[in-house]
Amino acid sequence: MHRCAYYITPMGKYVTITEIAKQLNLSHSTVSRALSNHVRISEKTRALVQNLADELGYQANSTAHHLSKGKSQIIAVIVPQLSLHFFSKVVEGIQKILKETDYSLLLFSTDESIEEEIKATQTCLKHRVDGVLVAISRETKTFDHFKQLLKHEVPIVFFDRVANFLPVPKVITNDYQASFNATAHLLKTGCKYIAHITGSINLNNSNNRLYGYLDALNSHEIKVRESMVHYYEFELSSIDKFLKKTLIKYPKLDGLFVFNDYVAHYAVNVLHKMGKRVPDDISVIGFSDEPVATYMSPKLSTVQQVAAKMGELTAQKIISILNKNEPMVSEKIIINPELILRETTKNELASPESIQ
Amino acid sequence: MHRCAYYITPMGKYVTITEIAKQLNLSHSTVSRALSNHVRISEKTRALVQNLADELGYQANSTAHHLSKGKSQIIAVIVPQLSLHFFSKVVEGIQKILKETDYSLLLFSTDESIEEEIKATQTCLKHRVDGVLVAISRETKTFDHFKQLLKHEVPIVFFDRVANFLPVPKVITNDYQASFNATAHLLKTGCKYIAHITGSINLNNSNNRLYGYLDALNSHEIKVRESMVHYYEFELSSIDKFLKKTLIKYPKLDGLFVFNDYVAHYAVNVLHKMGKRVPDDISVIGFSDEPVATYMSPKLSTVQQVAAKMGELTAQKIISILNKNEPMVSEKIIINPELILRETTKNELASPESIQ
Repeated sequence: MHRCAYYITPMGKYVTITEIAKQLNLSHSTVSRALSNHVRISEKTRALVQNLADELGYQANSTAHHLSKGKSQIIAVIVPQLSLHFFSKVVEGIQKILKETDYSLLLFSTDESIEEEIKATQTCLKHRVDGVLVAISRETKTFDHFKQLLKHEVPIVFFDRVANFLPVPKVITNDYQASFNATAHLLKTGCKYIAHITGSINLNNSNNRLYGYLDALNSHEIKVRESMVHYYEFELSSIDKFLKKTLIKYPKLDGLFVFNDYVAHYAVNVLHKMGKRVPDDISVIGFSDEPVATYMSPKLSTVQQVAAKMGELTAQKIISILNKNEPMVSEKIIINPELILRETTKNELASPESIQ
Repeated sequence: MHRCAYYITPMGKYVTITEIAKQLNLSHSTVSRALSNHVRISEKTRALVQNLADELGYQANSTAHHLSKGKSQIIAVIVPQLSLHFFSKVVEGIQKILKETDYSLLLFSTDESIEEEIKATQTCLKHRVDGVLVAISRETKTFDHFKQLLKHEVPIVFFDRVANFLPVPKVITNDYQASFNATAHLLKTGCKYIAHITGSINLNNSNNRLYGYLDALNSHEIKVRESMVHYYEFELSSIDKFLKKTLIKYPKLDGLFVFNDYVAHYAVNVLHKMGKRVPDDISVIGFSDEPVATYMSPKLSTVQQVAAKMGELTAQKIISILNKNEPMVSEKIIINPELILRETTKNELASPESIQ
């Protein structure tokens, strides 16, 4: 034994059991047992191994250890766009829960591309991740890549943007009820001509928000006008055209309920440019309480942000499945967000006779 | 051989070489060689192995393969707070580059805690990550946890918030020059009493921005007044006090240069409440072009956002080191951001005689 050689680690950057065994002229299994305090190893050998391990900065290779049991201690998170505040808050919520466990977080941001989403699921298999948490991209209409994960018994939990027909847990906002409440607030404060801008016909949350809007109008016996609903399909310029056309057809337009806060902010600016005052002429409600809602002027009335909560519930669900506290079944975990009333709505209830 | 048993994988959720070998009554090494098209394996055996591998949905265990070579194909990214738009944009920039490689991204958000940062570096060692990209927390004043990574020869690249004295690459914004330019713009447009709100005395970028401000004043022969500089130390309420005190002492205050856009937005609101008009009475410039800069009213003049670019340069640097195209050395990669002039500054140059 040459103690001066202890600091050289020719096997690579990480000190391995093999390296310790070689330096002490012991077998691999003796070193391995010594490091795990096996009863058949003498105290003297144990101390010898432990001292060298400490000197060399040996770290138990948890990944290799767990991989041998088919576990990587990694949970993958796939989001459509990390720099959307909503998704970065969801990921923070997920991390908050994972920090209390031994799982680490492998991140994928798909840039709204199904091709990237498919590549992400393949990388998940390559890394033998223990579970996958995912919000699907705008382009995702086929789900074979998720079925592939399930075939390998990798548990999945969807959040926010979910694949409805896969038999796994989904954590969602009660978009329908929140939209119903937002529209009902516009009606109760005297609005009679309420337009709705929603997202994409391809996204559940867009459609659920639309249904909430439609049912609120119906329940207040307000006629639904198809031309007052607009799927903007992530094309902001379509909003200028829609509002211009709607104001010509319905000059009495006095309410606007919008799919998300970014788009609501954009719509308020368009209305201002058209000479309309918010909320004096037209009340506007957004969705998700993004930072923009309080930065813009007037401040946006909107639906509560549930991102951090959603991340926490999603992470708790996968941990519970991985700990075998529960089986993976098709279920919906629903968050009911509150309405936040700020400056883009008239917040005094209209007199009863003025409400139809 | 019982073909009906092929779909059962009692070894765990992932089909292993061991499982294929067992079902075909072949040795592990024969199956392994067959799957990698080794020349010493007959075409018949190769086809037999490949067919069963396909049926079982076998995926090469890249992680185990690489771990055996001391490589995990994982790069860790440690940020102080993911939901700060700047950092989520940096992470997107990193991911953009990693997508072109075989590396995946393990994410840690430390919530500005050194304790979490230390835990993150320990987890990095546990997972045998190939490299670490990090922006340090506000609390980080000791760097032993990073030295521990270096001891294990794990390359590190710092970005934005860097540990100055570690001998590794650092990707930074030229905060000094950008701040010099911002302050010089205020001077050139006629401001004579310019205050500065900076971040924390513990952060390099705060201090570099301060030096740029001081030197711009000096180069225009404007007296530096120590009481016009405020380290807000992430305590927003301190800003109300500072501005109130400053306006009493210097009623002619006509310029304010602020550490970041969030704080600039807050300061503009405070000034409005104090009855000051921006930019008519006081010009304000922020830093980083966060979304708030364009959402607020008036829109904020600020310094260009370099987050995505910073992420790309940081990722390119670690990839280049891992590919052994270059050694890991102490170096600074500097991004020079432009000034963006919007509505919180008077943007016409003052007449020469009015500039001191």
